[in-house]
Amino acid sequence: MSQPRRLHLGAFMRPIGIHTAWWRYPGGYPDANFSFPHLKRFAQRLEAAKFDAFFMADHLAVMNMPMAALKRSATVTSFDPMTLLPALAAVTERIGLIATASTTYNEPYHVARKFASLDHISNGRAGWNLVTSGNPDEALNFGRDAHLDHAVRYARAREFFDVVTGLWDSWADDAFIRDVEEGVYFDPDKLHVLDHAGEFLKVKGPLNIARPVQGWPVIVQAGASEAGRQIAAETAEMVFGAGSKLAAAQEFYADVKGRMPAAGRDPDHLKILPGAFIVLGTTRDEAEAKKARLDALVPTDSGIANLSVRLGVDASGFDLDAPLPDLPETNASKSAQAQIVGYARKTGATVRALAQRVGGYGGLTMVGTPAEVADQMEEWLVTRACDGFNVMFPFVPEGLDDVVDTLVPELQRRGLFRTEYEGTTLRDHLGLPRPANQFFPA
Amino acid sequence: MSQPRRLHLGAFMRPIGIHTAWWRYPGGYPDANFSFPHLKRFAQRLEAAKFDAFFMADHLAVMNMPMAALKRSATVTSFDPMTLLPALAAVTERIGLIATASTTYNEPYHVARKFASLDHISNGRAGWNLVTSGNPDEALNFGRDAHLDHAVRYARAREFFDVVTGLWDSWADDAFIRDVEEGVYFDPDKLHVLDHAGEFLKVKGPLNIARPVQGWPVIVQAGASEAGRQIAAETAEMVFGAGSKLAAAQEFYADVKGRMPAAGRDPDHLKILPGAFIVLGTTRDEAEAKKARLDALVPTDSGIANLSVRLGVDASGFDLDAPLPDLPETNASKSAQAQIVGYARKTGATVRALAQRVGGYGGLTMVGTPAEVADQMEEWLVTRACDGFNVMFPFVPEGLDDVVDTLVPELQRRGLFRTEYEGTTLRDHLGLPRPANQFFPA
Repeated sequence: MSQPRRLHLGAFMRPIGIHTAWWRYPGGYPDANFSFPHLKRFAQRLEAAKFDAFFMADHLAVMNMPMAALKRSATVTSFDPMTLLPALAAVTERIGLIATASTTYNEPYHVARKFASLDHISNGRAGWNLVTSGNPDEALNFGRDAHLDHAVRYARAREFFDVVTGLWDSWADDAFIRDVEEGVYFDPDKLHVLDHAGEFLKVKGPLNIARPVQGWPVIVQAGASEAGRQIAAETAEMVFGAGSKLAAAQEFYADVKGRMPAAGRDPDHLKILPGAFIVLGTTRDEAEAKKARLDALVPTDSGIANLSVRLGVDASGFDLDAPLPDLPETNASKSAQAQIVGYARKTGATVRALAQRVGGYGGLTMVGTPAEVADQMEEWLVTRACDGFNVMFPFVPEGLDDVVDTLVPELQRRGLFRTEYEGTTLRDHLGLPRPANQFFPA
Repeated sequence: MSQPRRLHLGAFMRPIGIHTAWWRYPGGYPDANFSFPHLKRFAQRLEAAKFDAFFMADHLAVMNMPMAALKRSATVTSFDPMTLLPALAAVTERIGLIATASTTYNEPYHVARKFASLDHISNGRAGWNLVTSGNPDEALNFGRDAHLDHAVRYARAREFFDVVTGLWDSWADDAFIRDVEEGVYFDPDKLHVLDHAGEFLKVKGPLNIARPVQGWPVIVQAGASEAGRQIAAETAEMVFGAGSKLAAAQEFYADVKGRMPAAGRDPDHLKILPGAFIVLGTTRDEAEAKKARLDALVPTDSGIANLSVRLGVDASGFDLDAPLPDLPETNASKSAQAQIVGYARKTGATVRALAQRVGGYGGLTMVGTPAEVADQMEEWLVTRACDGFNVMFPFVPEGLDDVVDTLVPELQRRGLFRTEYEGTTLRDHLGLPRPANQFFPA
């Protein structure tokens, strides 16, 4: 009989706050996303709480927003993930370190080498979040006039994955003999030259670094599109993001895991961790009040810009202090419009309140006491909507301290989360096997 | 009256030993170049000795050697410099951190962002060693069939430098106001969009990170060719390498510094630090014996391969235990051949001894007591052959400990080297000004 399933917890740390107003919350650190001392302390607190991983999203450009919204965003200055994570590796010992790297605007030799280096420096704690780049403005920083098409991006991503993993397997695990007497540093029979020439990429190899401690760093993905689900089923070991409703998450979970056997994979070898925005209080009212206080800090112009996108209708002329007017038909997402209209009719919320609500954060949100949030997490886990969560903190340090000091102990009391790390690598934490070397089978 | 000139000292740490046999030296750490705990300890020792910088060369491929030599080389597995240096930044406080990054096989947006991130994480200690890639095999790892021509590489490097420094200047130093009350994170008037479109590169900008602590990380270069000297005079703040003979180094020093006024620069704003391979002993005989012991560990096949390259003649058929035979004319470097032939005739060295000598390390070498090596360093400094040295350790840890424990105190006793850091940034250590922002002049 196997152990009952437990939650895996990642911490979503770039942007350090997904909510537009995180940096304005009273008592917070407005520069937290760009302060190494703060980030070091957060990583060490998360490790003390036994989190699986510290997770960094990324963009290779400032966000593609109008200046009225951009000037309010802390994301315009933050660290390159693959520069920050090695620094955090040196001041932590167990927590996993996952960085996003685009397959569209990178070279596979660099990506393979940097993640292998991080995996060695951290003793096996690296993860690679493979993205094809969502922000079209990235193209303009890399010599292109326009973003690559979605289909081309995914075809390139698949080939890129094969090249990176092929480079990681350049050396057998026991290639480096360092025979001081004979003066032989490695066994030439344990070196594989990849010599890849495909549709998008041409890379000779070998990689100039030993095979990673974990064999391969953990492969993470976020895409929820049809192409994203398929590449996840074929290659991902952790998936981030799965929609904000329980039923949709269950559908996603069953769909992606259901595709895995056809790809020759065990569904247990992929962990699905949707993002969860968590606001805690000693009472439900206190938690709701914190959330309301945060939402009230969303500037109206940011909120109206977001609301217009979600409604598919320009909301900038609406009366801010009146209820939502009747809306024309939209060619944008009808479900997004219907969701907001339904909420507006039910609550009678003003346009200003709606703008603040969608201007903050619109995904899966859990607000309540530690017991209430633990109940919700447990429901998601046992109904197979997820294997855990990537926790998004509403503000720092208080929102992070609340999770570490009140929610994690509640989850541990219920046996839903570890009280000690059982292993040393990110694969150990996630219960993932170490991949065999494709060129040097055991 | 200004302070008398003092030496600047860098530590050449990738490869951790430039000598082929460093990893075989008795009592050494054969895996030192690939062990984070060892490298961390070395960085902390060098910082305690007040070194200016920890310097990492780099190659984006395994070395282009025949397998008989390659299998003896520790460089085949080592860390990506821009992954190792952030980790070292987290466990040191003052020492500068210089990494090599190629302008031929990188994108300027990545380079600008990573060095800016390192500069912020380290509080102003980053340096960028700009190279155009010397190892032709790198091309094969980046989608090309052959290395770019020397002239094209240098033209691209010059444009690449303009783009990187332009991206570093994307934000005025005081752009990030973080006005919590108003909800404004930055002042839009203090953002510059580069919008570069040149012969080789097209990059819109802005960079998604604040201007570096140092304005720009310190610009380092190594090239000694005509094109390399000119780009150094125009852009470099530290130059590594200048030939192994005093007269040649003086010529290089005078030539490069002499070109600077025409480029509108103060010659004091460039520091020239040739590499110096240093072997110390309590007596000269002891130092010579260490060097001989190390050279004796160079495998004959590595040495013969190197000797053949230097002579421009296949030496593999020569009698190893006989003196060097008469040689045919060569189309390779006549000066390299003449130098070795002269040494062979003067000393009567056997082919085996010559192979060991050139197979180890052939550049500027200082062997002796701390006082003797300090004498030589002082002569180079006062006769304006250099502003200091990038120290190459013959083996580790002993060779590094010898420098830290015996040579540095001797230099400090003579007033030739600092006893405390006077500032916090690499620019402070080197006596370099902080560049003004080209788009937001003070």
